[in-house]
Amino acid sequence: MQMQSSRPDVFVLRREVRVRLTATGVCHTDAYTLSGKDPEGAFPCVLGHEGAGVVESVGDGVESVVVGDHVVLLYIPECRNCKFCKSGKTNLCGAIRATQGKGVMPDGTGRLTDKASGKSLLHFMGTSTFCEYAVLPEISVAKVDTAAPLTSLCLLGCGIPTGVGAVRNTCKVEAGATVAVFGLGGVGLSVVQGAVLAGASRIIGVDIDSGKFANALTFGATECVNPKDYGSRPIQEVLVEMTDGGLDYTFEAIGRTETMRSALEAAHKGWGMSCIIGVAGAGEMIQTRPFQLVTGRRWVGTAYGGTKGRTEVPQLVQEYMDGGLKIDEYITKKYPLEDINQAFKDMHDGKLIRGVIVY
Amino acid sequence: MQMQSSRPDVFVLRREVRVRLTATGVCHTDAYTLSGKDPEGAFPCVLGHEGAGVVESVGDGVESVVVGDHVVLLYIPECRNCKFCKSGKTNLCGAIRATQGKGVMPDGTGRLTDKASGKSLLHFMGTSTFCEYAVLPEISVAKVDTAAPLTSLCLLGCGIPTGVGAVRNTCKVEAGATVAVFGLGGVGLSVVQGAVLAGASRIIGVDIDSGKFANALTFGATECVNPKDYGSRPIQEVLVEMTDGGLDYTFEAIGRTETMRSALEAAHKGWGMSCIIGVAGAGEMIQTRPFQLVTGRRWVGTAYGGTKGRTEVPQLVQEYMDGGLKIDEYITKKYPLEDINQAFKDMHDGKLIRGVIVY
Repeated sequence: MQMQSSRPDVFVLRREVRVRLTATGVCHTDAYTLSGKDPEGAFPCVLGHEGAGVVESVGDGVESVVVGDHVVLLYIPECRNCKFCKSGKTNLCGAIRATQGKGVMPDGTGRLTDKASGKSLLHFMGTSTFCEYAVLPEISVAKVDTAAPLTSLCLLGCGIPTGVGAVRNTCKVEAGATVAVFGLGGVGLSVVQGAVLAGASRIIGVDIDSGKFANALTFGATECVNPKDYGSRPIQEVLVEMTDGGLDYTFEAIGRTETMRSALEAAHKGWGMSCIIGVAGAGEMIQTRPFQLVTGRRWVGTAYGGTKGRTEVPQLVQEYMDGGLKIDEYITKKYPLEDINQAFKDMHDGKLIRGVIVY
Repeated sequence: MQMQSSRPDVFVLRREVRVRLTATGVCHTDAYTLSGKDPEGAFPCVLGHEGAGVVESVGDGVESVVVGDHVVLLYIPECRNCKFCKSGKTNLCGAIRATQGKGVMPDGTGRLTDKASGKSLLHFMGTSTFCEYAVLPEISVAKVDTAAPLTSLCLLGCGIPTGVGAVRNTCKVEAGATVAVFGLGGVGLSVVQGAVLAGASRIIGVDIDSGKFANALTFGATECVNPKDYGSRPIQEVLVEMTDGGLDYTFEAIGRTETMRSALEAAHKGWGMSCIIGVAGAGEMIQTRPFQLVTGRRWVGTAYGGTKGRTEVPQLVQEYMDGGLKIDEYITKKYPLEDINQAFKDMHDGKLIRGVIVY
């Protein structure tokens, strides 16, 4: 990957803010788009979507933040005014979806330029955090407590709210429930954390890499299973047997459609809910027998854990400051921006829960 | 089909009741098993599962009904004592599942004999209502108001609670919500009725037979669409456009996996819930892109509309007696048992909402 460190053009339009990034997490979603497999991927762009920083300038009409505020960047904005925000039922704000998907600002322009060539670069997920500066609509930043360390808070831009929110917002896991998590990367560990915070009675981590079990147990998983230990036996059968009928809640945090099916079928007949978190490859389909649903299993999914960023990220920061929410425990290693390719390599090698680029 | 009119053996064991049937509906599920396509179908058996009648004798230990009580037969029992019943989350009582699935009583014996050959016949769905008499466990009958006409109440054995319950119990449709129903047979019309009772603001009937639209509108659909009128355009696209983003709730009451997918994808991004009611063919799979769920659609299913039979069927009877629940409007034609093959033919020809066999 070519490192992107270009400074955005200085102009900031109405209701926009410019943020000087402090830190950004490196996430598998960045790697997925980088791989070229993401059909929505638009190039050339600046990747990165898990960032936090300081507001450096604001455009006209910005009301919710001022220069110097600390913010977490949001790839799902919260306008509080569109059909989706007003519904109260979802975090999928639709205010700037069309332009964000095209890699440009709401006015249709881009604000990133490759210094070397002078060519315009597209934005990625409305954030482009692999860059010292980012310009975003006001609705795409969550103002947070300045007392909290921004190098930690960047992880609230994606992984942690995604896993914790899947448990709290999407599935509303109740105390005493049983939970299984497929995939024990950063998001899977956040599901484990969410389940612990919800008071789940049993939290089973599932991964084909037993090297990840130690972390999962530290985060609060009560046990871990490796499907490879069961030969050709479907893991859902193993889990149903282990739990006398299946789990109350299962989560897929990998992005494989086969595992999504396993997770659904490991859910308990009559009430089990299975939540898709992972992003599958382009064109891939999930499938199961409809009997699985007719007999009471429920299949749902989540994006950013259903988190309404401007409202809930500050609450998560408070929870972190109060000692209730783990963040620092996810950061395996910090890198300067020039070592970002090494961070990607370490991620692919399974060495990291999260690697964080610090500017 | 060979008509079955054999009288069951007279013995009634502990906690069992013998019912003299008064009437039974004829349902597509009977036809499906009759066709041989149901892999769970066990023959030779007496079909029929939508019946009502009068308790004729009771075994030892029966506490909830006495001779002379009017009952609706339940293919999903309600023992109130198993893990499922106690959960409060599902109607899928597990008390007698294993033996019922094998076509026998809980003690492992059958109670139906073919008079001509003297051979034992299997029970079907624990009910076998195409017969003047039925022996069932006490937990498989719902005691109802004797003032209500049993020839109407038989339809509470399947179709009406399935559709109304899918709306009320499974999806919990709220007032003002928008609803689409795929398939306008007896169950689909019951979804329409359930949606009306829930106060839905818009109820769209979907069927490839426009001849069914008049009934749907009478039951309260606000509009109907025929996918054939849109050529090769996917009906989910049509519905999403018609409703500015999709429906709050969609229901599949046909049993085709393609329509199940259409129904899911016609649900609104962010919160739309799609409920599978229809029973698909053996081995058939539902499929969709996981993105559909990740962007907030929820895929669920229902059996008997989530209805806890012994508790809720009497309530539905009361609602009917109070004029709040339509039942008689479903009965297109009544037949004597000897005309049951004609009733099946009329059903296949689409002439009936429901045909009812009256003994």
